Order: sequence, then structure tokens, then C-alpha cells
Amino acid sequence: MKNYITKSSIEIGQNASGEAISVTKFTIKGTDTKAKKVYIQASMHASEIQGNAVILALLNHFNEKQPLGNITIIPQCNPIGRDMLIGAGHVGRFDAANGDNWNRYYFKPEINYQAFAENHLKSTQAGYGKALRQLISTQIENALQSDFGLSRARRLNYRMQQEALWADIILDLHTDTHAVDYLYSPQYAKESAKKFGFEHVLLIENKCNGALDEAGFYPWWSVQKAFAQLAREEPVLVESYTLELGSEELIDHKKAEIQAQSILHYLASQGVVDQMPGHKHALAKPVAFYDEGSFRQVYAKNGGLYEWFLLPGETFVKDQVIGQCLQMAHAKAIPICYPFDGLLISINGKGALQQGSHLLNVVNAL
Amino acid sequence: MKNYITKSSIEIGQNASGEAISVTKFTIKGTDTKAKKVYIQASMHASEIQGNAVILALLNHFNEKQPLGNITIIPQCNPIGRDMLIGAGHVGRFDAANGDNWNRYYFKPEINYQAFAENHLKSTQAGYGKALRQLISTQIENALQSDFGLSRARRLNYRMQQEALWADIILDLHTDTHAVDYLYSPQYAKESAKKFGFEHVLLIENKCNGALDEAGFYPWWSVQKAFAQLAREEPVLVESYTLELGSEELIDHKKAEIQAQSILHYLASQGVVDQMPGHKHALAKPVAFYDEGSFRQVYAKNGGLYEWFLLPGETFVKDQVIGQCLQMAHAKAIPICYPFDGLLISINGKGALQQGSHLLNVVNAL
Amino acid sequence: MKNYITKSSIEIGQNASGEAISVTKFTIKGTDTKAKKVYIQASMHASEIQGNAVILALLNHFNEKQPLGNITIIPQCNPIGRDMLIGAGHVGRFDAANGDNWNRYYFKPEINYQAFAENHLKSTQAGYGKALRQLISTQIENALQSDFGLSRARRLNYRMQQEALWADIILDLHTDTHAVDYLYSPQYAKESAKKFGFEHVLLIENKCNGALDEAGFYPWWSVQKAFAQLAREEPVLVESYTLELGSEELIDHKKAEIQAQSILHYLASQGVVDQMPGHKHALAKPVAFYDEGSFRQVYAKNGGLYEWFLLPGETFVKDQVIGQCLQMAHAKAIPICYPFDGLLISINGKGALQQGSHLLNVVNAL
Amino acid sequence: MKNYITKSSIEIGQNASGEAISVTKFTIKGTDTKAKKVYIQASMHASEIQGNAVILALLNHFNEKQPLGNITIIPQCNPIGRDMLIGAGHVGRFDAANGDNWNRYYFKPEINYQAFAENHLKSTQAGYGKALRQLISTQIENALQSDFGLSRARRLNYRMQQEALWADIILDLHTDTHAVDYLYSPQYAKESAKKFGFEHVLLIENKCNGALDEAGFYPWWSVQKAFAQLAREEPVLVESYTLELGSEELIDHKKAEIQAQSILHYLASQGVVDQMPGHKHALAKPVAFYDEGSFRQVYAKNGGLYEWFLLPGETFVKDQVIGQCLQMAHAKAIPICYPFDGLLISINGKGALQQGSHLLNVVNAL
Repeated sequence: MKNYITKSSIEIGQNASGEAISVTKFTIKGTDTKAKKVYIQASMHASEIQGNAVILALLNHFNEKQPLGNITIIPQCNPIGRDMLIGAGHVGRFDAANGDNWNRYYFKPEINYQAFAENHLKSTQAGYGKALRQLISTQIENALQSDFGLSRARRLNYRMQQEALWADIILDLHTDTHAVDYLYSPQYAKESAKKFGFEHVLLIENKCNGALDEAGFYPWWSVQKAFAQLAREEPVLVESYTLELGSEELIDHKKAEIQAQSILHYLASQGVVDQMPGHKHALAKPVAFYDEGSFRQVYAKNGGLYEWFLLPGETFVKDQVIGQCLQMAHAKAIPICYPFDGLLISINGKGALQQGSHLLNVVNAL
Repeated sequence: MKNYITKSSIEIGQNASGEAISVTKFTIKGTDTKAKKVYIQASMHASEIQGNAVILALLNHFNEKQPLGNITIIPQCNPIGRDMLIGAGHVGRFDAANGDNWNRYYFKPEINYQAFAENHLKSTQAGYGKALRQLISTQIENALQSDFGLSRARRLNYRMQQEALWADIILDLHTDTHAVDYLYSPQYAKESAKKFGFEHVLLIENKCNGALDEAGFYPWWSVQKAFAQLAREEPVLVESYTLELGSEELIDHKKAEIQAQSILHYLASQGVVDQMPGHKHALAKPVAFYDEGSFRQVYAKNGGLYEWFLLPGETFVKDQVIGQCLQMAHAKAIPICYPFDGLLISINGKGALQQGSHLLNVVNAL
Repeated sequence: MKNYITKSSIEIGQNASGEAISVTKFTIKGTDTKAKKVYIQASMHASEIQGNAVILALLNHFNEKQPLGNITIIPQCNPIGRDMLIGAGHVGRFDAANGDNWNRYYFKPEINYQAFAENHLKSTQAGYGKALRQLISTQIENALQSDFGLSRARRLNYRMQQEALWADIILDLHTDTHAVDYLYSPQYAKESAKKFGFEHVLLIENKCNGALDEAGFYPWWSVQKAFAQLAREEPVLVESYTLELGSEELIDHKKAEIQAQSILHYLASQGVVDQMPGHKHALAKPVAFYDEGSFRQVYAKNGGLYEWFLLPGETFVKDQVIGQCLQMAHAKAIPICYPFDGLLISINGKGALQQGSHLLNVVNAL
Repeated sequence: MKNYITKSSIEIGQNASGEAISVTKFTIKGTDTKAKKVYIQASMHASEIQGNAVILALLNHFNEKQPLGNITIIPQCNPIGRDMLIGAGHVGRFDAANGDNWNRYYFKPEINYQAFAENHLKSTQAGYGKALRQLISTQIENALQSDFGLSRARRLNYRMQQEALWADIILDLHTDTHAVDYLYSPQYAKESAKKFGFEHVLLIENKCNGALDEAGFYPWWSVQKAFAQLAREEPVLVESYTLELGSEELIDHKKAEIQAQSILHYLASQGVVDQMPGHKHALAKPVAFYDEGSFRQVYAKNGGLYEWFLLPGETFVKDQVIGQCLQMAHAKAIPICYPFDGLLISINGKGALQQGSHLLNVVNAL
């Protein structure tokens, strides 16, 4: 690796022998200190691993071509879930000891944004940006020192958030179960989001429900709104996305090359890397935006053995048979159809399933 | 069993062969149709089983002495979690497939309580009570028929809630991990709660966060408040409690006899059963009430092998050494103390634990 | 279903509420009492479910065309493992409570085969067959009544074995993880085995290591050998096979149709069903036989994120790169090759894996 | 720590990021190079942790008083199982990915002991001892380099065995589930075994079934037997024991002090440490020896909620009620008794259990 790429280690926990549990961090120093800073992590849901192949492609790219902006990358950021192999799969989406979803405990700072905006009405962007980051950082630091301790998921989330906090662009690399690629984008960043070239984009509300994307942008959206109420027009200084890079438990290095190009194309549009001619192809297809509310989880109405006739990314119409459920106790096959049209985003359950199992994620046009 | 005690079966799910997953329901017909109706369930957290021993004691009691009010009892109400034996313990607190806490998905009805109260300003208690139950029941029924299906935890919660909905008194029997007995009571029911004779009572807010106790009383508290705004003074018609009956994965039939007596004493105070002289002993000790906010979970600050020197129910003072943590990688023992006084409610983690593991529940006097 | 097909229920265990745990059994009465009897079961490894789709195809076939011989079918014969959904997959190959492989505890009878053969030197085939079955049945029955009880796996295996014991042909339907179809056949049944038309056949030794195939044929092979020592030439009266029907956690009804045809073609060759012209196509490909010893499990020499470039059923040569392992802590990809030629039977591990994880099953030509 | 105690790290695996998984090894240099060498490990079954508290007591002792013989200690020797917290307990006895019991894959060398003894008929004890160790070591090393890789359990066992191989005394520290202390001793070491002062001793056969105790002594017992056939009377040079130190998932430092004294008393009898007057008290009680065959596992004949009336270490007689099983579906309690007398060694199952669950370990007087 070139000498502008450095590797370090961050302690995120302690095992039952009293030794550190750590993650590896790669830091790529950019050539332009004024360029935007980027934070990328993968595998907070530990079985969602394709982002690491994308990171390897990005590291190889940066090794050949130094970026303008500083980039911090943490692959496999959840070492607790990483090795939780149980039977035929991982327990990687939640803490196996208590059920905590690894992506729901990022810190929501307690800030009076109106007061903050008033105090910083005359500050530069750099000035109030630094002040807000400092404020959040202190709050996270205090939370980490709580007299009562922190759960594993919360501690891990807070530690990663401390790393992400200093970036202007935050990319959290996930996958769905067996899925088409899609992107979670904040509503205000709709135009920027197009630059990733993802065919399917889910627009999320300006709230803070514990995932990194929301925790990353919420303070910046809030302060921008507060400034607006004081008649100062400001952009939202931070963009934060969750990239759903296909299917879990799977590495596909060829697809990773294309996904890395998508990210580079977006980063070029943000001035983090130089424009590259080769990126255009990723934008061939039109981008569809969906409201978060149209994204629905579908659960099994019957218990049985499930087989699907549709692939993620395909659409279906009302009453179309898109799968079947074998019930061996009754020696019959039940066709599966729904009373709505939809786009199949992901297949989350197949094979032997009880009633109530998570079957599908769909975008539902009611 | 006497003929006023009947047994039936409720289908709550379907296994992967297409067969019904059911729970057993016992119905005890009371002698007085005007007496309050009671609903009791145990083991929604499937590894929390002591409530079943209490139910067996109650059934034996009712078999000898018919109650005044109708009583519905569902032991082991979570057959999905019941048999989830994995290694040295159960996965009984959450759905092993997706991490859903089995006690967080009870239905919160969408009701305009102000409009309801206005419509029923002249109704009798029985009249508006029946109307409100009918409204909630219809909403749950509709939710169970959702086009998108329901997750296992949600479906199970909704089905039990349909049973509980018709009762005036709802008792949800749980345990903590390794714990002293304690009671969750709504704040408005503080005086009634004393009749259980539990030494420790946690007062919960009038909100609805998904547990059965809250889901059970929230609509009734809300409608009472709405009536009050219209200057009609009404009691809250439903009382709903969670009883924490000691330690999980454990049956203690002698203790169950005493716990059953506590419940009978409370039911006698509500006119559901006849007063019995023998109940008084359960009230020997004074009852302490704590705000929900003073009940704190304590997480491991170190990874290691944990040993505790205190028993649940005992108190400790600031900086008292109440346990130790062996770190074998460093061949040392770290004493454990906290910068606050407290009452130890439960020991939730012992043995080999990572940093961030749930150690204790304490009532914390800041 | 026609009236020669009947359904019944067999109790194989008891859940923690004291209720029966049962499996469904289908019995198809044949037209010819002298024809061979068949026993078919699926999903003892509960995540290996394709056999059920095959069973549904067979039931549909038998419903249209009554067989000559009696056929007993038990789909999803392991209801304990069936619903063990944990995180991203099943724990279906072993008892989640104690690690017992569900397919290793079938009963091995204690029989002095030489003495048995001497006693039955003049018996008819039917005569000594009935006597041997009776002997084994009594031993299994006694074992089920052990004063010390039986583990879940052992009890389940014994109960299924009681059903299988009365058949002349035993088919145990399994799958591998992500695999090509293959067949385990006893060495003496090599010629019969060809009739299934499976491209890959593993020949197993005449021993008894706890799986159903071996437990099914071992007594019959032993008694035939004992007769041979007394100069009476007898065939081995029972044939017992394990069919590996592709990949686990998957239902493919189109493939199931073809697999059902393969089974029917074999059954026709045994006189259990009528010959059908359509079966021939299944035999287009040549059958390769392999010694059990050449079937090898391959384990990960490195920990990392695994990607494979080869499909099950394909061959590879010494030093050919057939996959790669990403090690994100070192930002590198390690090519995977082996110092031997081989046939890839199955991919058992992909994605995030520790060193020592089960990667592949191969047939290895040393 | 004194400078004759050193700490090092042994790599036993690699995680899914490609980093080493290691265990900590403590080496205590003795004062007398001719004294016997000792190997101690704890927690191969990762939830059996009391041995670590004993090790800490031993380290503290050795820090104050240097031993005569060299002592190697590996606490928490199974870092893969160590952090496998799932729901209410550990999966620590077996590999959660495939069910492998962590204590069943130690290496059994392929040695022609008769030929070895003939070659070494004139060798000194030291001479043939060194040669045999070298032979085994080379075979283990080759096995670790297998072209096909090794499973996690096998690799971990082999690595620990390489450490144990050079010792004259091997102590493997385990616990049972909820149990009295007991000792596994090879039959030939019966007299030495008394020195531990354990009340209950199970005598194991001279075979090699994959556990460390057997793997440790089997070659030495075999070579002694081979010498005997050549009329050279030799002692068995290695003693190897499994110490069952009470209950799993539990640390008790007071009990650990007593258990450490028991070990020191044994070591003193072997000349590894100086005699100490204080050790005698551990031998107050008589030692009972039991054949391996009289140690029986008892499994649940009913599914239900189990409560026990007896403690580990207590005896029971035929038909004595020693517990009960609540079956809530039938609202009844079934008394538990057995048709034999016995000593209760451990309670392995309580609470909600299916039929076939492991209930007890007993010593059974048939």
C-alpha cells in the first residue's frame, strides 16, 4: 500500500478473557485538505458482507489514484457478530445474547438546535460545523463513560459513530437477505443520491430512529432548519446513505467492481475524487424513488415449505402467483399471491418457515 | 377438575408442516356474573416459567373453591419460544429468528379518546366499556387480517391481547433472570397494587410501549382522562400488572404456593374471590414503590469471568465491592463497585461475559 | 386422495407443555401383496427439505396410479429440528441443545447372526425375514423403554426405524448444503443403484455407524453373509439408500418432478410400480461410482470472506484457483487451490468463515 | 508476577477478518529440572469456567512459592466457544456451527507399540519417553498440515495436545452442569488419584475416544503394556485426569481455593511441589471409585416443567420421588422416580424441557 494509506486498530469491546476486541481502520489521506471527508463502514450487520469486497476494490483504486478528500474506511466493523456461526447461517443482524439489532442504537444527541443556530448565526460553515461536531462528540464520550455501562450494540454503535462524526459523507454498506441493490437516501439529498446510479432509492424521513444513516444526517438537517427559521439559508452539510449491496452471506468480486464504480462516481460528483470517464455506464438505467412508507415487509400467512417464482428486482401484479407453499401435513401446495401490485425488493424467507416468518420486502403501490 | 373449569385450545400460529401451533386455555366460570373478570397468562418470555407453577396452584385452589368472577388462564402462552433450547439455556425472551422481544408487540389501538368520551358522555360504565372493547377488538381483528401478514411476535401478542381484552384485571406472569420478586404497576393503581403484598413495586407511566401491562390499561386510562376533561369523573376500569416471580428457568412449587396466595389476596380485594383469613401473612413486609426511571440496567464495563457477592433483594452502597471479574489473560481479579447506592433487583449475567453484557438490574437512588 | 392412500399420525416426542410432538405418515396400499414394500422419509436433517417436494410429486403420482407394493411415506420426519430458525438459517442438522447429529443414532441390534442363520437354515426367505424383523423390533421396543430414558435424537431415530423396519426398500431423502445430486448406496447394491440414474454414487461399507441407510441394510447383509458361511446362497433382502437431492433450505418443484421420476424408475426395476416408458431419460448420463474413502470434507485453512468460482458437479485440477478468501484485516485476497484433482460435490461454506469452517465436499482422486 | 512465571500467546485459529485467534499460556519454571512436568488447561468446554478461578489461585500460589517441576497453564483454552452467548446461556460444549463436541477430537496416534517397544527395549525411560513424544508430535504436526484442512474442534484439540504432550501430568479442568465435584481417572492411576481427595472418582478404560485425558495417557499405557509383553516392567509414565469442578457458568473463588489445594496436594505427592502441611484436610472424606459403566445419563421420559428435590452429591433409592414434572396442558404434576438406587452426580436439565432432554447424571448401582 502507498504511504498515504495507513492501517490502525480501534478497540470496541473486551472478550471474556479480558482482551481487546478490535476492528481495523484504513485511513487514506487526500491531496486537498479542503475536499470533503468521507467515512465508509461495512458489515455492522455481520452477515452482510458484500461491502467488504467493495471496500477492497476501493482500496485498490485509491492505492493507484490518491483521492482529493480524506477517506476513513472500517470494513467488518462488527467483530462480535462476525464469527457468530450457528447451524446453517450467521446470527449477524442482532446480538445473539439479547436480540438487539446491531443497527438501532446509534446516539441521538440532545441539542437545542434553535439556540445553537442563534449562537452561531454569524459563524462560518466551518465554524458552526466544528462546534456542532464538538458538541456531539462530547455527548457521545460522556455516554460511553456512563456509570451503568452500555450494552454491546450501543457501545459498538457509539464507537463507530465517533469515527463517522468527522466526515461530510457517510456511507454505511449493508445488504438485504436475497435482494436487488438499493439505496436509502435522506429526502433532502435526492439529487445527490442519483449519482450513485442505483435503480431503486428509498427516501427516508428527517428523523433519528437509531440507524447510522439517520444518526449521521439528523443533526445537520436540524441545524439547517433552525438556521432557515432565522432566515439564514444553509445547505445540509452532511450526506449520509445506507447502500444495500445485494444479498447477505455472499461475496461477488465482479459485482463489487461495479458497485465500487458507483460509489466513485458519487464521490467524484462531491469533489472527493477526480472525475473519471468510465463511471458513466452505471447511470444507464433510470432511478426510481420510493417513499419509505411504500416499502413493506411481508410475513408468512401460512406455515410450510416456501418456493418463489420471482427474482428480486422483478415486479408483480395483484393476484399473480409468485410462489407456493407446500404443507406436507396436508399434502398440498398453496399458491401465493397478494391483493396488490408490487416490486420485489428482496426474498427474506424460503424453505421451511412458520407462519409469521419474514418472507419478502416489497415496494407496494397501493 | 370441576365442571365449571373447562379447557380449550387457541391456535396462535402454524408450523412449517402446515399444522396448527396452539396454546391451552383454562376457563373458570365464576358464581357472580357481576364480579370482575380476570385474565392471567404466563411465559410469554418462554424461559420465565415460575408463573406456571403459580397457575397450577391457582387451578387447584379454584377447583376446591369456585371464584365469584370469571377467570381465563393461559399457561405457557408462547409455544414458539417454549422449546427453543440452545446449548446451556433457552432463547425464550426474543424470537430466535429475528431478535423480536416477545413482549413488545401488543396492539396499540388508534382511537380518538376525546371524541369517544363525547359520544359516550351519557353512557353507563358497562355501556362505554363494551363499546371501547368492541372498537379495540375490531381493530385487532383487522390488523390480524393485514394483506402483508404479521410477524410471529406480533401475531402471538395480538392473539393473546384478544383474550385479555374482555377482562377487568390482567395479570402477566414473568420472571427476571436471577431475581427477587417484584411488580410492575400502573401509577394510578398504586393503592390496589399494595394488595399483592410484593415488597418491591415499580410504577410505570401511562403510556403504551408494546408490553401487555401497558397495552392492557392504556385505553382505559386514556378514556378516563378524556371523561375527566368533560367533567365526568370515572375510575380507570381496567387494572393490568406484570408480576416478576423470581428467577427464570426455574420451578419452585413451595414458593409458587405463596405467590398464588398473594394473587388470591389481591383478587379478594377486587371482589373476584371470597376473602380468606390466611392471606394476611403475605402483607407482613412494607411495600416500597419506585419510579420506573430509577430502575436501571447495568452493563459490563470489563470482559471477564463474573462472580457476585450479593443476592437479589440486598442493598449496596457507593464503592462497596459487590462482585469481581477475573481476567485470565491478565491473571487478575478486578473488584466491582459502583459510584451509587442501590438495591439489587436481579443478577442478569454471571460467568464468562464480554464487555457490554447485561449484568444487573438495580433500583438506583441517585 | 384415493381411498388406498391414508394419513395417520405418529407420536415421536413430547413438548414442554406435555403435549405430543407428532409426524404425519402417508400409507399407500399396493395392489399386489407379494410386491416389495417401500419406506420413504424426508428431512431427518430438518433443513434438508427438497425430499418433501419429491414426496408431494410421488403422492400425486400414486394418487393417479396405484402402486403394486405397499408404500409408507413420512415427510418432515423431524419436527423438533423443523422449526429451529435461528438468525439467517436453521439449526437442522443437529440437536441445538446438545449437538447430536440427527442422523447418527439409529439402533444397531445385538444379534448373533451365525446362530440365527443356523437356526433358520431351513427357513424360507419369508420365514427368516419375519423372524429377523421381529427380533430387531423387540430390541428397539425394549430400548425405547429404557429405565434411563433416551435422548431426543435417539428416540426419534428409533421411532422412525420401527417404521422402516418392515420395508424391503428404504429411501432416506436428504440434501447436502449447496450441492449436486448424489446417492449413497451399499456396495452390494451397486447394480440396483444404477436404476436411480444419479450421476454420482458413493459406495458405503457394510457397517453400522448410526445413519438410517446403514442401520437399514446392515442386519440383512450380516445374515446373508452368515448363510453364505453355511453354504446357503441368499440375496441381501433389503436395499437401503440415502438420496442427496441437491441443496438445503430450498424447494424446487420442477427438479422434484425429475427426482420423483428417478425414484419411480428404480421402484419399477424392483417391481414396486409398473414400468413406465417416460422414465428412460433419467438414465442418459453415465453413472460414476466412488469409494466412501475418496469422499473428503475440506476445511478452511484461512479465516476470511469466501467466494467460489466453481459450481457443484464441476471438476478441478491440482493448483487450479477455484475460489478466493478476502482477509479484510490485511486488505488482501488469497486465491484458493488444492494440491489434488477433484470433483466438487458441494459448497458447504461461503461468506464470513473462521479457519476450520467446513468449506467443501469433494471426491478426491489421490 | 515473579520472573520465573512468563506469559505467551498461542495462535489456535483465524477469525473471518483473517486475524489470529489466540490463547494465553502461562509457563512456570520449576527449580528442579528432574521433577515431573505438568500441563493444566481449563474451559475447553467454554461454559465450564470454574477451573480458571482454580488456575488464578494456583498462579498466586506459584508466585509466592516456586514449584519444583515446570508447569504450563492455559486458562480458557477455547476462545471460539468462550464468547458464544446465545439467549439465556452459552453454547460452550459444542461448536455452534456443526455440533462438534469440543472435547472429542484429540489426536490418536498411529503407532505400532509392539515394534516401538522392541526397538526401545534397551532404552532408558527418558530415552523411549522422548522418542515416543517425538513420534506423536510429528504425527500431530503432519495432521495439522493436512491438504484437506481440519475442523475447528479438531485443530483446537490438536494444538492443545501439542502443549500437553511434553508433560508427565495432564490436568484438564472441566465442570458438569449443576454438579458435585468428581474426577475421571485412568484405572491404572487409581492410587495416585486418591491424592486429589475428590470424594467421587470415575475410573475410565484404557482406550482413546477423543477426550484429552484418554488421548494423554493412552500411548503411555500402550507402550507400558508392550514392554510388559517383552518382560520389561515399566510404569505408565504419564498420568492424565479430567477434574469436574462443580457447576458450569459459575465462578466461586472460595471453592476455588479449596480445589487448588487439592491439586497442590496431588502435585506434592508427585514431587512437583513441596509438601505442605495444610493440604491434609482435603482428604478427610473417603474416596469412592466407580466404574465408567455405572455412570449413566438420564433423559426425560416426559416433556414438561422440571423441578428437583435432591441436590448433586445426594443419594436416592428405588421409587423415591426426587422431583416432579408439571404438564401445563394437562394441569398436572407428575412425580419423578426411578426403578434403581443411585447417587446424583449432576442436574443437567431443569425448567422447560422436551421429552428426551438430558436430565441427570447418576452413578447407578445395578
